[in-house]
Amino acid sequence: MKVLYLGDLVGRQGRDAAVARIPELRKRLGLDFVVVNGENAAGGFGITPPICDELFAAGTDVIVTGNHVWDNRDILPHFQRENRLLRPANFPEGAPGRGVGVYDAPGGRRVAVVQVMGRVFMDPLDCPFRAADKAIEAHPLGRAVSFTLVDIHAEATSEKMAMGHHMDGRASLVAGTHSHVPTADHQILPGGTAYMTDVGMCGDYNSVIGMDKQEPLRRFMQKTPGGRFSPASGEATVCGVYVESDDRTGLARRVEPLRIGGRLAEVVPAIA
Amino acid sequence: MKVLYLGDLVGRQGRDAAVARIPELRKRLGLDFVVVNGENAAGGFGITPPICDELFAAGTDVIVTGNHVWDNRDILPHFQRENRLLRPANFPEGAPGRGVGVYDAPGGRRVAVVQVMGRVFMDPLDCPFRAADKAIEAHPLGRAVSFTLVDIHAEATSEKMAMGHHMDGRASLVAGTHSHVPTADHQILPGGTAYMTDVGMCGDYNSVIGMDKQEPLRRFMQKTPGGRFSPASGEATVCGVYVESDDRTGLARRVEPLRIGGRLAEVVPAIA
Amino acid sequence: MKVLYLGDLVGRQGRDAAVARIPELRKRLGLDFVVVNGENAAGGFGITPPICDELFAAGTDVIVTGNHVWDNRDILPHFQRENRLLRPANFPEGAPGRGVGVYDAPGGRRVAVVQVMGRVFMDPLDCPFRAADKAIEAHPLGRAVSFTLVDIHAEATSEKMAMGHHMDGRASLVAGTHSHVPTADHQILPGGTAYMTDVGMCGDYNSVIGMDKQEPLRRFMQKTPGGRFSPASGEATVCGVYVESDDRTGLARRVEPLRIGGRLAEVVPAIA
Amino acid sequence: MKVLYLGDLVGRQGRDAAVARIPELRKRLGLDFVVVNGENAAGGFGITPPICDELFAAGTDVIVTGNHVWDNRDILPHFQRENRLLRPANFPEGAPGRGVGVYDAPGGRRVAVVQVMGRVFMDPLDCPFRAADKAIEAHPLGRAVSFTLVDIHAEATSEKMAMGHHMDGRASLVAGTHSHVPTADHQILPGGTAYMTDVGMCGDYNSVIGMDKQEPLRRFMQKTPGGRFSPASGEATVCGVYVESDDRTGLARRVEPLRIGGRLAEVVPAIA
Ligand SMILES: [Fe+2]
Ligand SMILES: [Fe+2]
Ligand SMILES: [Fe+2]
Ligand SMILES: [Fe+2]
Ligand SMILES: [Fe+2]
Ligand SMILES: [Fe+2]
Ligand SMILES: [Fe+2]
Ligand SMILES: [Fe+2]
Repeated sequence: MKVLYLGDLVGRQGRDAAVARIPELRKRLGLDFVVVNGENAAGGFGITPPICDELFAAGTDVIVTGNHVWDNRDILPHFQRENRLLRPANFPEGAPGRGVGVYDAPGGRRVAVVQVMGRVFMDPLDCPFRAADKAIEAHPLGRAVSFTLVDIHAEATSEKMAMGHHMDGRASLVAGTHSHVPTADHQILPGGTAYMTDVGMCGDYNSVIGMDKQEPLRRFMQKTPGGRFSPASGEATVCGVYVESDDRTGLARRVEPLRIGGRLAEVVPAIA
Repeated sequence: MKVLYLGDLVGRQGRDAAVARIPELRKRLGLDFVVVNGENAAGGFGITPPICDELFAAGTDVIVTGNHVWDNRDILPHFQRENRLLRPANFPEGAPGRGVGVYDAPGGRRVAVVQVMGRVFMDPLDCPFRAADKAIEAHPLGRAVSFTLVDIHAEATSEKMAMGHHMDGRASLVAGTHSHVPTADHQILPGGTAYMTDVGMCGDYNSVIGMDKQEPLRRFMQKTPGGRFSPASGEATVCGVYVESDDRTGLARRVEPLRIGGRLAEVVPAIA
Repeated sequence: MKVLYLGDLVGRQGRDAAVARIPELRKRLGLDFVVVNGENAAGGFGITPPICDELFAAGTDVIVTGNHVWDNRDILPHFQRENRLLRPANFPEGAPGRGVGVYDAPGGRRVAVVQVMGRVFMDPLDCPFRAADKAIEAHPLGRAVSFTLVDIHAEATSEKMAMGHHMDGRASLVAGTHSHVPTADHQILPGGTAYMTDVGMCGDYNSVIGMDKQEPLRRFMQKTPGGRFSPASGEATVCGVYVESDDRTGLARRVEPLRIGGRLAEVVPAIA
Repeated sequence: MKVLYLGDLVGRQGRDAAVARIPELRKRLGLDFVVVNGENAAGGFGITPPICDELFAAGTDVIVTGNHVWDNRDILPHFQRENRLLRPANFPEGAPGRGVGVYDAPGGRRVAVVQVMGRVFMDPLDCPFRAADKAIEAHPLGRAVSFTLVDIHAEATSEKMAMGHHMDGRASLVAGTHSHVPTADHQILPGGTAYMTDVGMCGDYNSVIGMDKQEPLRRFMQKTPGGRFSPASGEATVCGVYVESDDRTGLARRVEPLRIGGRLAEVVPAIA
């Protein structure tokens, strides 16, 4: 199976770039399934129902989120209607929405998407390792599903790498988000799971993690409130990770970064 | 000027790989100056005087460190003898050692190396932005020095990107370390400064940030003490960033990642 | 000199209780000087110019604040007009307002008030110990001033106790705020400085740090947004610390807690 | 029932003071049950089997601990033998030891002791509120047990107060530890549960949270390693909370602080 996962869409620039590129990438790369992280899609903070619709219409199969999931309150009731929208699975019992979904892909195949959030330097949720275990056990790779994507939305690289190894051999892809910077450590782990510490944001890289740089810079130095944070207005780089997996085992055969547009060096997987 | 900066050497594997590669890279890339981050060189924690000597003998010009600088106590007195060894400049006044140095490079050129440490999710040192300002003002680029390397040793990508913009036009290179994962966002900022959020570690990437994965994984899940952390024993990937600058302005003309050996996709700057 | 310092006034309940009690306490205890912490006076978040006026009219000499100082933006320009309003002195250079003031007290005496903020588990400001040193050196106790009050607005008890010892013999009183809970460790340190880790809030103690308990409880358990935080509506306990000092040396002769009204056990210093 | 809970014993001074006072306090106050926090009993870091024996021999019924529980490795196997030793209940499944115990008290009564650890500014364990719920539901107050003591070992006063309200009406006493400073907010909450944010340490209050003040002070200012932390050597103040409860309902009728010896103002509950 051929799967693309695009990192945190930041504001209109990130959203528009992703919406513009997804149809062309589906075709060019022969993609079977597309997942995007939408936690910063609405002005940098959260996501709204119309934005979800726009992303699905463009060819997104599933939207995951992260710590910013609740920033825009309009999304809370939407979780009841839209099962293609996920939030971290390790929120405590009773939180709106869900963190694990199983979806149809072409050819009768099934894809599991699991999102968990790290706890190092973040809010103390339930154990993300056990939450991932539980999801994987409910939908075993190579049997119940042909592909399992685990997003580890986390700050610390140590926790993300640990999640990769913890899932190794049990997921097709473990990819991180939240740092808004793509890493260059994509690899297939010894057990066959594709891994990348962070897939990066879809946003303007002439910025501070996608936001206009003036106000963050001022705050770092002055420690006083001031203007608002707003997404940077330069051209976005669409950043993600591309994986090809074996449909029988569900394990990865190939993992490559994707970066198109904007300021970063362009990389697109070569398709034979 | 052609400068290479290699990220955190982790344990013997990282150290040996760097020592083995530096001479060949100096020649192949025609390097004028080599800086390495040695904060994890001694068994993953700190650095010792003999390790400094080994790195200098291999062709390193300057060693920077980070939050692990004091882990091995033998290094404290060494700071008085060895001015090619730096620690973050924003430690409080009176701390051993220094965070800024100016060094000779071939052709009578001078290179400034500045290290500062971030404060987000880290120990509360003095303001890294003001510390960098002070260093830059003491050794202006294009006048007192031909090249200025600023290392921002930090956890948060926001603080690292902010430092890049804060220094833009006033340093040749702002590069981050500490996350032990190379990023793919190398670029020349609008003002002419080369930037890369993290240059990555020189270490085994089948690991948790360079350390054998068993014990970190156990601790993340069980929250109890157990075995010791020790560097992973697989082949290290040597990770760094390469910059070519204009000797007159000191600004960057080219910035590229370097990754050799081990598990990560190999990338070496092509030299005409 | 007889000085009273009242901790964080939380919302209308805390404000009204302080305003009602200050005149009676000035008389009953023969107070020479009254300081209050107003960082939560405006609905729990920040302070406004009219609230400052109300507190001064009731007999407050100086208002200090803390991490919530900027929550209500109306206060920013007020710092230029009102020198009896302080914010932590260790905000970076250029921040609005000031953190140190010297004021007139009855009998031609002078009182220095210094506020610093801790950095453990808080925003990384400049070093609070050095900021306090600088203030003390500018206004030496027993010479330039008859009384020096140092507020250490901090989370960690370790940092607060360290500040007490660091100032011991150089200030009349080191008292903490921010935890919103009064401590019972008031004492005169070996060098003659009165010390109390936290003077507590002026607010309703049937609450979560002064706020209505429902929403904080829900958030601790559910980790999702919901209603707003608003001050609890029960009767406030006015909490503070009372110090008698030697006018010649400026050192403390007596330190006692004060707690009046609301749910906590009442304690008022006995005046001969 | 009459119960005394003494806070964190720090090193030999704290231990010796507690051991000396417990027999006399049992008699003087007619105590039915004594609990102590022993997480800092062994040189400030952890606890050993012989120290447990010494505390039990002096008249302690149950020892609780906290984040320092594993500091001294000798204690790990001891948890299998000694059911009067507890660690926070919200460590992940599979951790050594237990966090909830039910014990015999005079007159055929049963006492439940529950320890949970906060997560704000601390290690991300499982939810302490749910862990406390589970313990309380397994041993309902007024039915299965006559007295329930819940220790909330936590940094943030907000989390401690929230735990008090969460348990209100379901526990006899919710008391905090970890800050090493006694608070003065002891009260009976509306539902009948006695509450005190922190019972304070048994240790020398001329110190930084019980440790000799020189090294902590130096580290706060210099941010470099140096000497070791060792317990302060002055006379300890024994600090705790005393509760009288209704044996039928298990709810509190009286709550008072206890402080004896050392530098703090002495307070001992008056017994008719
Ligand atoms: Fe994000
Ligand atoms: Fe995020
Ligand atoms: Fe490192
Ligand atoms: Fe580091
Ligand atoms: Fe406050
Ligand atoms: Fe505060
Ligand atoms: Fe403790
Ligand atoms: Fe503790």
